[in-house]
Amino acid sequence: MIERVPVSLVGAGPGDPELLTVKALKRLQQADVLLYDALIDERILEETRPDCVKIYAGKKCRDGQNPQERQDEIHRQMALHFRKGKQVVRLKAGDPMIFGRGMEEVRFLESESIPWEVVPGISAGIAASSAFALPLTERNKSRMVLFTSGYTSSGETPGCDPLVSVIKEGGTVVVYMGLTKLHCLLEVMEKAGIGNIPLMIADRVSQEGEQLLAATTDTVLTRLESVRVQGPSLVMVGKYLETLEPKELLESLYQQIPDTSLLT
Amino acid sequence: MIERVPVSLVGAGPGDPELLTVKALKRLQQADVLLYDALIDERILEETRPDCVKIYAGKKCRDGQNPQERQDEIHRQMALHFRKGKQVVRLKAGDPMIFGRGMEEVRFLESESIPWEVVPGISAGIAASSAFALPLTERNKSRMVLFTSGYTSSGETPGCDPLVSVIKEGGTVVVYMGLTKLHCLLEVMEKAGIGNIPLMIADRVSQEGEQLLAATTDTVLTRLESVRVQGPSLVMVGKYLETLEPKELLESLYQQIPDTSLLT
Repeated sequence: MIERVPVSLVGAGPGDPELLTVKALKRLQQADVLLYDALIDERILEETRPDCVKIYAGKKCRDGQNPQERQDEIHRQMALHFRKGKQVVRLKAGDPMIFGRGMEEVRFLESESIPWEVVPGISAGIAASSAFALPLTERNKSRMVLFTSGYTSSGETPGCDPLVSVIKEGGTVVVYMGLTKLHCLLEVMEKAGIGNIPLMIADRVSQEGEQLLAATTDTVLTRLESVRVQGPSLVMVGKYLETLEPKELLESLYQQIPDTSLLT
Repeated sequence: MIERVPVSLVGAGPGDPELLTVKALKRLQQADVLLYDALIDERILEETRPDCVKIYAGKKCRDGQNPQERQDEIHRQMALHFRKGKQVVRLKAGDPMIFGRGMEEVRFLESESIPWEVVPGISAGIAASSAFALPLTERNKSRMVLFTSGYTSSGETPGCDPLVSVIKEGGTVVVYMGLTKLHCLLEVMEKAGIGNIPLMIADRVSQEGEQLLAATTDTVLTRLESVRVQGPSLVMVGKYLETLEPKELLESLYQQIPDTSLLT
């Protein structure tokens, strides 16, 4: 029996094709069938062979699709093309195991006895950290970073204890898809006595229109009145989220915070 | 004036050269001078040109080096070779901004007005998640992941509130260099009423000798008596840290946990 090529769940990274891993690029070039998400950068799709069948499998806000039906259809397509002998690549924005449905797809493939592999990708939070020199951790300053989604799939507010706890401990919090829940986030922090700390919005990291909105928890709403944020964007918050490039800008936005001010 | 090539702080990822980003590989191939850390895989060093000057800048546990002097020497070398007109690449394990001294080096370069860039890398926790299909987040199950170091540079126990808080919220915690602090970690969890949840040790991810030690908070110490862990390794803990491949193994190790058992 010939060993079958596994279905490959591939992380596309934040957008820039140079931020693909070498393995991810190889898989794209090998793909007979590519199933790709809404947030995938056009430049990355161009890395496939001309004869690769590219199937859009994305979901956009308010497009009327039933998420479960869409997911089932992705599963069906993966199995169908694999059984036809095709090299199937499932391309997901960022990393497949962080805020994607990578694990659901792995479970499905496993249940169908279809061989699979996961190729990791640069997650947007990590890409933003490099792009803007925003420290996620730093010796003696911040020894933890929390990646969290801004909301659950049912639209509830996420449990905010971990968020508050990480910030009070001096760590950094990266909220994926956090902009729509910004008011709620600020409210939670205010209630916990956390104010006047750096809060950045990293918009379209490594894509056209990339920008960083440098602000603080106190100034971000005012700042947002004059800046157009296109998305996808991340909200990053934490005392040590200092930046270098917009440092002068940042210094004018908030006062120096004494070391103990967070420990309410 | 000719625009100078910036000093490039490059993430080497977990070990496998295929997990370098395309940009990182390009920088390695361009390097005249490479400053590399102790944990860098030999195969990655081979990606440089034959005439590239490779300078070991690592520190190993108990090697008698003064960490600050060593760091100052790295800074000195970066500036020296840059000023000689060389393309300097500073190669760091994983991602430069997560548990490395990337930010210190950025601050130094900035203070010397030396142009720099940061090229992100696949961090070990993310690589482990892909390699072993360990879900870091999953819809309706786990919406956050905390990356934390097992200890501070001064050897203190890290603040444990965020860790406990994330686990109680159903999230996953990834402790870098966590093995030496495992006893302390288990103690903290026991004190918080968290027991019998999956705890994995991901050892040498993507390197020779890669292995996953699947256990629970209750069984890990016994398991460690019969398994040799070489390091570097990560400790991953969280209720939803289910695995697929060693599932049967895992099921024999812990009982099904009722949904509310963590909320003490």
